[in-house]
Amino acid sequence: MAVGMQLLPVLCLVLAASSHAHRTKTEVPPLADPEPSPYGSLWPLPQEVQVSSTVLLIPPAEFAIVHGEGSTAGPKCLVLQDAFRRYYDYMFGFLRLEDVPAIKPRSGQLVQLQVILTSKNNECHKYPSIHSDESYKLSVNDDGAVIQACQVWGALRGLETFSQLVYKDSTGAFLINKTQINDFPRFAHRGVLLDTSRHFLPLKVILKTLDAMAFNKMNILHWHIVDDQSFPYQSETFPELSNRGAYQAFTHIYSFIDVRMVIEYARLRGIRVIPEFDTPGHTYSWGKGQKDLLTPCYKDGEPSGTFGPVNPIVNGTYTFMYTLFKEIGMVFPDKYIHLGGDEVDFSCWKSNPAIAKFMAEHGFGTDYCKLESYYVQQILDIMSKLGKGYMVWQEVFDNHDQINPDTIVKVWKGQNYAEELSKVTAAGFSAILSAPWYLDYISYGQDWQRYYKTEPLKFNGTEEQKKLVIGGEACLWGEFVDATNLTPRLWPRASAVAERLWSSVKVTSVQDAYNRLIVHRCRMVGRGIGAEPLYVGFCEHEMKY
Amino acid sequence: MAVGMQLLPVLCLVLAASSHAHRTKTEVPPLADPEPSPYGSLWPLPQEVQVSSTVLLIPPAEFAIVHGEGSTAGPKCLVLQDAFRRYYDYMFGFLRLEDVPAIKPRSGQLVQLQVILTSKNNECHKYPSIHSDESYKLSVNDDGAVIQACQVWGALRGLETFSQLVYKDSTGAFLINKTQINDFPRFAHRGVLLDTSRHFLPLKVILKTLDAMAFNKMNILHWHIVDDQSFPYQSETFPELSNRGAYQAFTHIYSFIDVRMVIEYARLRGIRVIPEFDTPGHTYSWGKGQKDLLTPCYKDGEPSGTFGPVNPIVNGTYTFMYTLFKEIGMVFPDKYIHLGGDEVDFSCWKSNPAIAKFMAEHGFGTDYCKLESYYVQQILDIMSKLGKGYMVWQEVFDNHDQINPDTIVKVWKGQNYAEELSKVTAAGFSAILSAPWYLDYISYGQDWQRYYKTEPLKFNGTEEQKKLVIGGEACLWGEFVDATNLTPRLWPRASAVAERLWSSVKVTSVQDAYNRLIVHRCRMVGRGIGAEPLYVGFCEHEMKY
Repeated sequence: MAVGMQLLPVLCLVLAASSHAHRTKTEVPPLADPEPSPYGSLWPLPQEVQVSSTVLLIPPAEFAIVHGEGSTAGPKCLVLQDAFRRYYDYMFGFLRLEDVPAIKPRSGQLVQLQVILTSKNNECHKYPSIHSDESYKLSVNDDGAVIQACQVWGALRGLETFSQLVYKDSTGAFLINKTQINDFPRFAHRGVLLDTSRHFLPLKVILKTLDAMAFNKMNILHWHIVDDQSFPYQSETFPELSNRGAYQAFTHIYSFIDVRMVIEYARLRGIRVIPEFDTPGHTYSWGKGQKDLLTPCYKDGEPSGTFGPVNPIVNGTYTFMYTLFKEIGMVFPDKYIHLGGDEVDFSCWKSNPAIAKFMAEHGFGTDYCKLESYYVQQILDIMSKLGKGYMVWQEVFDNHDQINPDTIVKVWKGQNYAEELSKVTAAGFSAILSAPWYLDYISYGQDWQRYYKTEPLKFNGTEEQKKLVIGGEACLWGEFVDATNLTPRLWPRASAVAERLWSSVKVTSVQDAYNRLIVHRCRMVGRGIGAEPLYVGFCEHEMKY
Repeated sequence: MAVGMQLLPVLCLVLAASSHAHRTKTEVPPLADPEPSPYGSLWPLPQEVQVSSTVLLIPPAEFAIVHGEGSTAGPKCLVLQDAFRRYYDYMFGFLRLEDVPAIKPRSGQLVQLQVILTSKNNECHKYPSIHSDESYKLSVNDDGAVIQACQVWGALRGLETFSQLVYKDSTGAFLINKTQINDFPRFAHRGVLLDTSRHFLPLKVILKTLDAMAFNKMNILHWHIVDDQSFPYQSETFPELSNRGAYQAFTHIYSFIDVRMVIEYARLRGIRVIPEFDTPGHTYSWGKGQKDLLTPCYKDGEPSGTFGPVNPIVNGTYTFMYTLFKEIGMVFPDKYIHLGGDEVDFSCWKSNPAIAKFMAEHGFGTDYCKLESYYVQQILDIMSKLGKGYMVWQEVFDNHDQINPDTIVKVWKGQNYAEELSKVTAAGFSAILSAPWYLDYISYGQDWQRYYKTEPLKFNGTEEQKKLVIGGEACLWGEFVDATNLTPRLWPRASAVAERLWSSVKVTSVQDAYNRLIVHRCRMVGRGIGAEPLYVGFCEHEMKY
């Protein structure tokens, strides 16, 4: 590969100083001072890249992103129209056009980027799905630049890549190197989990996260929307759930409008929104607005006034769940809903005499896993009736035999997750890995390296089994996270996960990753994402709050 | 003490849910769910507080903060004038006055807060100093509220306390309980260290930190302004220091105007600004703009092209330092300058033949500590000539005999800091503790409890020795901190340090601290400080970015 780029000075200069780690110890050994990567600031690294040393000048006032000839998409493809405008803005938007100096002729200029969709089923007017095609080809030549993709989703990824190739010289002129890229994701499911129950996250914080996800080619927002602590989802059918279960019924909720806005904002960036309504545990807040939903706990033969998991032995529970999930299934267009199923505490069930009776009648003995299984089975049946697919936390697989073959199992327990991946895939289930990527756990220093080095397919299993791992998620649980610290805690640490899930298995150089990520991080800062620093240094434009 | 306050619902409701620590382990054991403290949301807790159950209504449109009769201060006391306006705004500023509902007569109303300075030397027109008096008395009665203080600094602390007593009822009406407070700080030096060399911090971030410090009654900004990585201080005498040593000579510097603004903004909040110009180590960036300042290192008998600490054997060094510190002494009005003196690496000195010769001539043998001592002694002499006091890191005490008796020693090494405090104070030096409060070290969970439980005087020593510990500092070193994450990393963790240094030694209940701090944190958020959450829950007004 011929390399002629000098992208680093544009976005971030880092001092090659004697690097005293002043009065500090770090868990992760320090890397060498960053220097320009042969791959510039591309993040995540595309599958195939050829960067030439020939540099083209881009005159922003003349530059346009257009639908290319033969494209199956045109001005009615709003996803692309919006993306053209957005990426022009990311690249050149902070200039007033009249401020652009007169162009000095150079070897070559680039005045157009054509975007060509090749498939009739280009999904311009659809939501992204598990089957969406995110692959694209990008060529930057003297006679123009072209992104070719089957579907809009690949075009969106290509636009992000193109924007990452643009840089400035010392006079401020915009440049791009002649480049050929062939790119596609290694894993189809590349997610971020946000938790809006432990702390309410204002809509703006969620939208900002979607922006940053697009900058990192991540494509799933796993929205852990409700939990014990609060129920901010405003249900049309059961308004009391948020009226009584939210932290505050007017200010700390997501209305139908809010949810639709998140979904549409995500769609425009090629991101699926998968809501999690976790039952039968983690439902304390549900009980406030839905009478008789939770199991009454007993003490000394009397109801104690406290409540446990969802009550699995009354019909009302299933009627309620059917109605609620029917609504949820309509509000959230994605094929999949996450049903939770983790960490069910049996102590309340054990205390309740009606449950004991039910257990006896059904021959469950004292195996409360069987009761949990009974409950989960009913919920899964409801989902099937509603035509929805589902994901569950690993306990549902660990404890139950009768889950449908198309269930997607999320592996979250930190210990022995490789073994769990082996088991889940050996049983023929698809799996998503989140165990090594709990970003709410923080520590001093460059822990992103640990996330980066994690290889999701490093477990005992056949090739067939490995194909069943469809991706992973960076999880930012909310116990200690809210609008004040979410963005710098998530980024650029989630960027490490993003590259691991997108780029080739062969992309393993932590030093090269560092060289690119330090620039990518400053680019995110420049685009308004308060991503925290990786180490000493600076960005040309520091964060403005 | 009679207690009738219900401050908690106004600022922050926290769910008393089954507190699953969802998928998380924490170092620090969780506390009980927070509930209203008998002390409301006072932070740091005043020395003596009596809160009555009698509630007074405050009608904001009629309420005024005024100079009380007999006060030695009047409208020309700009520190107070500015503080009156500021605290009115914190308490009532988000309302338009016409929106305030007609006042229903209640048992009593409070329409005035008088501020009375009693000393002729009230320091209205001075900078705060080590000798400033921050004590005050506050009484809130039917016939009015009064803050009495010798000097403006106590009045500022009293205004903060008064603002913390105001709360709202469920209709939004402002209330305050009849209260008597007698308050003064336990330690005179209560600091925050900011590091603007590892990352440049935009001026706004520093000013915001000063706001938050005032909310926590902290009174020292220890400004670690330059270090190896960059030299953002713009010197009038030696402009090349920042021209060449800053990350960027125009955007990443502090001009004279910037520095003056920080100092004045701090003064208005009763905060001293103590700059640190650390030598002879930690000076890599200095060498870029000042030829022959640093020691040339040698390899195989030849200069290697790299540089070590300040060169202590040439006269030019001391001429330069005298001139620079003369300027610094004029720019920064505080009596004290921090001279650093930590972590001097001797390897470069050892490699240099001229230094070997100098050592021999001066009879230093091979004891490079003696050379360091020689250098430090010259610098201390310069400071004495300039009439400045100084602080140093503990190495200067550990390695040298001839430091002046009024040197203030900062204890920073984490291991055996109690022993170091014993030694420093036994030798008769004043000490400041920062070792247990390195807030740049992060970990999962409620680490503020650890900072809170640290008792600075828990070391072997006489009463006389303990009196020599004048305070402590929360240090936020900048390797991994910049504008993106500074505020949530510093607050409310530094608040724990603030209360430890202000409140009585008897204030040790972590649970009561939690109950108050969770509200204090939401108050900071309401005032624009993005202080991170302590645990699950919410603020009435979440952070808006």
